[in-house]
Amino acid sequence: MHNGIPENVLIFSGGMDSATLLYYLLNREEMVQPLTFEYGSKHNYMENQAVAHVLRMASEIYGEDVVLPGIYVSLGFLGELFQSSLLKNGSKIPHGHYESENMKSTVVPNRNMIMLSVAIGLAESQKMDCVVFGAHGGDHAIYPDCREEFVKSLDKTSQLATFRKIKVSAPFIGMTKANIASMGHNLHVPYELTYSCYEGGEVHCGLCPTCGERREAFFKAGIKDPTVYAVSWEETKRICKIVG
Amino acid sequence: MHNGIPENVLIFSGGMDSATLLYYLLNREEMVQPLTFEYGSKHNYMENQAVAHVLRMASEIYGEDVVLPGIYVSLGFLGELFQSSLLKNGSKIPHGHYESENMKSTVVPNRNMIMLSVAIGLAESQKMDCVVFGAHGGDHAIYPDCREEFVKSLDKTSQLATFRKIKVSAPFIGMTKANIASMGHNLHVPYELTYSCYEGGEVHCGLCPTCGERREAFFKAGIKDPTVYAVSWEETKRICKIVG
Repeated sequence: MHNGIPENVLIFSGGMDSATLLYYLLNREEMVQPLTFEYGSKHNYMENQAVAHVLRMASEIYGEDVVLPGIYVSLGFLGELFQSSLLKNGSKIPHGHYESENMKSTVVPNRNMIMLSVAIGLAESQKMDCVVFGAHGGDHAIYPDCREEFVKSLDKTSQLATFRKIKVSAPFIGMTKANIASMGHNLHVPYELTYSCYEGGEVHCGLCPTCGERREAFFKAGIKDPTVYAVSWEETKRICKIVG
Repeated sequence: MHNGIPENVLIFSGGMDSATLLYYLLNREEMVQPLTFEYGSKHNYMENQAVAHVLRMASEIYGEDVVLPGIYVSLGFLGELFQSSLLKNGSKIPHGHYESENMKSTVVPNRNMIMLSVAIGLAESQKMDCVVFGAHGGDHAIYPDCREEFVKSLDKTSQLATFRKIKVSAPFIGMTKANIASMGHNLHVPYELTYSCYEGGEVHCGLCPTCGERREAFFKAGIKDPTVYAVSWEETKRICKIVG
């Protein structure tokens, strides 16, 4: 707390979920220390562009005293140690829906706990209060480290591990990505500046699971999607098996 | 499990505790994947020498099929992000006993959770079963992330975060360092090859808290201490407030 204002370390990827969480916290008049990880993913470069653009915009609107300068941490060793199609050394990114069995190849083993552990250490070191991240209901099916029971257990572990009893939370854990898009729309999140695609190209591929999920979220929320995709909505629906 | 043999990722620093844990696991006929972290500490160079020497010795005795080649991971960002006298950018290492208030400066915020999270990811990626580390009873007073309740909570969190339900344990958590020295003596741990000193000099300083604890452990266990110290036992006892 700084003058009664909660101070959060936010895991910030430059994607839809963490950008919405940034605006959500700022709208609650909380302070945010953005923390971005580079871990040798294929979409690293485009994510970093998005991170810089979204932070600049948020800072212009809410002020530099509440949007602290972003901190970047390299976890380059993950790309060397671990197997995942998400990583530069990995196999091809699968196309289609997240719930398909082949999407397990996009899991980076224990990625969230690693990032959250560093964020907890940063919060402890900088005398902040909480660590927040943008996991949501749609992540649960495939990523075990996006489930509420994981977040609760890590929160307890963090409070045991630190002098300041740093809290860990995922405020969107009970929401769908369409709920997030609706909320973010009302908060004026600049979604045109965010980036999600696992392929890491200049425009969103529209075929990987995160593109499918992004496009579906805007569609289900009934909001205009400002994203440029390489393929039509019909093609995304077909490949990503989106119903409706 | 590989042919019924448990496979462990061991956090291995080249110090007394993790070297004893290495020999303890090998003596139980388990496989060990040593994992060493470099995090910008002052004693990094000497620790790495110890790691290499102890692993070579263990490998000669137990065989290369059970002592897997060591993996080294750089967490260089810790030295830039965090404040700790243990780190190269930090203040002077305090002399004296661990339980003194000024020893808190040697805490690297959330260091154990960060290292253990990476180890859990490695175990998941390499299809191993458990992560083990050498925390013991004497660590509790100062380091919150060396306590049994922390280890239990992290174990639960790890099993929630991974497909393989990776276990985390600290087999020496209920032991004193003197107990560890006794056990290691019986297991023929080459303590002359291990390194503990926070100062990172060629010989152990004999004045920092970890030197005091090391020297006291051999003394209390009634075992000859093969370590070369820069100061006499009387001087270590006086500065580190060792009774007896």
